[in-house]
Amino acid sequence: MGIPTTDIDQSRMLEALRLAQLGLGTTSPNPPVGALLYAGDKLIGQGYHEKAGEAHAERRAIQDAIEHDNAHLLKGATLYVTLEPCSSYGKTPPCTDAILEFGLARVVYGMQDPDARHRGRAKALLESKGVQVCAGVQEEACKAFLRPWVHSLQTGLPWVMAKVACTLDARMVRSAERWISCPEALRIAHELRLQSDAILVGGATVRSDNPALTIRTPISHVPICKQQPWRVVLTRHRSSLPKDAKILTDEHASRTIVYECVENLQDMLRELHDHYGVVRLMLECGGHLLREFLDSGLVQEWVQDMAPMIGGGGALTVPGEDFLTRELHLHDVTIQQAGVDFVLRGFVGS
Amino acid sequence: MGIPTTDIDQSRMLEALRLAQLGLGTTSPNPPVGALLYAGDKLIGQGYHEKAGEAHAERRAIQDAIEHDNAHLLKGATLYVTLEPCSSYGKTPPCTDAILEFGLARVVYGMQDPDARHRGRAKALLESKGVQVCAGVQEEACKAFLRPWVHSLQTGLPWVMAKVACTLDARMVRSAERWISCPEALRIAHELRLQSDAILVGGATVRSDNPALTIRTPISHVPICKQQPWRVVLTRHRSSLPKDAKILTDEHASRTIVYECVENLQDMLRELHDHYGVVRLMLECGGHLLREFLDSGLVQEWVQDMAPMIGGGGALTVPGEDFLTRELHLHDVTIQQAGVDFVLRGFVGS
Repeated sequence: MGIPTTDIDQSRMLEALRLAQLGLGTTSPNPPVGALLYAGDKLIGQGYHEKAGEAHAERRAIQDAIEHDNAHLLKGATLYVTLEPCSSYGKTPPCTDAILEFGLARVVYGMQDPDARHRGRAKALLESKGVQVCAGVQEEACKAFLRPWVHSLQTGLPWVMAKVACTLDARMVRSAERWISCPEALRIAHELRLQSDAILVGGATVRSDNPALTIRTPISHVPICKQQPWRVVLTRHRSSLPKDAKILTDEHASRTIVYECVENLQDMLRELHDHYGVVRLMLECGGHLLREFLDSGLVQEWVQDMAPMIGGGGALTVPGEDFLTRELHLHDVTIQQAGVDFVLRGFVGS
Repeated sequence: MGIPTTDIDQSRMLEALRLAQLGLGTTSPNPPVGALLYAGDKLIGQGYHEKAGEAHAERRAIQDAIEHDNAHLLKGATLYVTLEPCSSYGKTPPCTDAILEFGLARVVYGMQDPDARHRGRAKALLESKGVQVCAGVQEEACKAFLRPWVHSLQTGLPWVMAKVACTLDARMVRSAERWISCPEALRIAHELRLQSDAILVGGATVRSDNPALTIRTPISHVPICKQQPWRVVLTRHRSSLPKDAKILTDEHASRTIVYECVENLQDMLRELHDHYGVVRLMLECGGHLLREFLDSGLVQEWVQDMAPMIGGGGALTVPGEDFLTRELHLHDVTIQQAGVDFVLRGFVGS
């Protein structure tokens, strides 16, 4: 029933996707979503979902149009939104209601709702009310962007990104200097923290590095609504953690979760998902714990900051003599230069 | 006395540099050099140095002009050459003689002769005979290209490039498959062999891998005059090498040099330079021998082919617990995608 997609639809959807990215790290357990409203060639409103319990992207775009005195243009307007609008009551009323209430004429969306119970429901509902619907515009880009959220939705586990910083010979420490990463690569590491709901380390890291695991400057954009990520520590005995460790004593101490004697990493991840709403988890642990996650097949994404140096000594990213149970292959790998470092990023293949 | 350099000079010098690159790997102990001859806007001849003892780039460009019936255009022509022409007798007569003999009016060169005894001598000589000389055009690019040759000239040692192929966790072997590198990265490895005068491994590599260490297809361009590189093996006891090892028994067996019980790597390198004319040496050895080279400060260039996988086990590129005597820093680092692999290349800083 929808009219054919055009180049204009494609480029406007990419714009909506850029808006969606502003919500990365603050929307869990909801997905980050972006929306634009056009009356003909005129952009009349835009918005993105910022936080669970608050307005969805569609409603924020409508609100934005009203605030910019474009309310009279809403009737007959086109909505671009990266994910199929919701059609049922959650913490907020369904977006399909708003689309109908304000008389929008056309809805273009990127990715279908991945939940089998809702998939295509908004499309059918809107079309039955005479709204033109065009689905699957920039679908691959929208799907790639929402991959972590879909994984979490479908498995009930957080999307796990392993993040390491190392020399070219895979050493995580240097002889003299404290840091492996150059300032530009550190900035990227903090942006990854910003996009995460939780950061996980082992007790050994707390004892040796006393990290704060907080998002700190310099970051280009930290949303006001962003809480510090949960700080998750896995340790044999809670008592082995220094009482004055930053994560136990700083102003964000309430955001620290300590797990003792975890026997099953997957159960622990499920609890992080179910009890703490963690959709995106970042591993910043040492090699031995990282190996356990790899061997359990619980890592979905790999980020490796490589400093252009060779140390020859010090802890390895993945220590040990034995091969992993299953060799890990990355796909869709990209490399980004960051100062003198190179940051490689890829997804774990099946 | 030279007339000012122009954009045209700059771009023609880059063209001469591209010609020079065709000589990479066959000219040692001479440098690879390229030359172009222009009469006004017309390219009348071109050439590059191919092999020590044979004509220099300048004379080959003149010969090329004659063969293309451009002899009558040589008088008054401009020569572009990447390195200051020679002005003294070596294995061939001085190029300055040919420049004067054929009445060239202008000589543009990239890099001065680095040998203090010859530096600027051609310039002075040619200018005294009324030839316009323009020195230092694309000097940085020409210097970067000749860096290995200059190093060898100034130290009496080969330029040493360490080449490793590894996983992201710096493992050089895999659990099941034989190769780390993808086909495109293997092609680059063979091109690096083509540019090398010698390839060095340890006895352990001969015993475990039985490598041929030859240049093999698929290579885009193998000059007819290219001999297989010297294959240098360092071992405690020659008798520990399998008698049927490829490098001892194949058709290139005469190109294999075995060193027993090397106590001083620098002395060994000096002999490779002095006795075998090795200017560019490529290390394809295992980690323990590589460490010795690194700790001795004898490596100038680092090439790392990284496969987008994590193995978790197997030999490391730079094994050991202790840090290197001096942490190695690379500069002018580039990364090239080769199939699914990434090939990082950089120079060892001082």
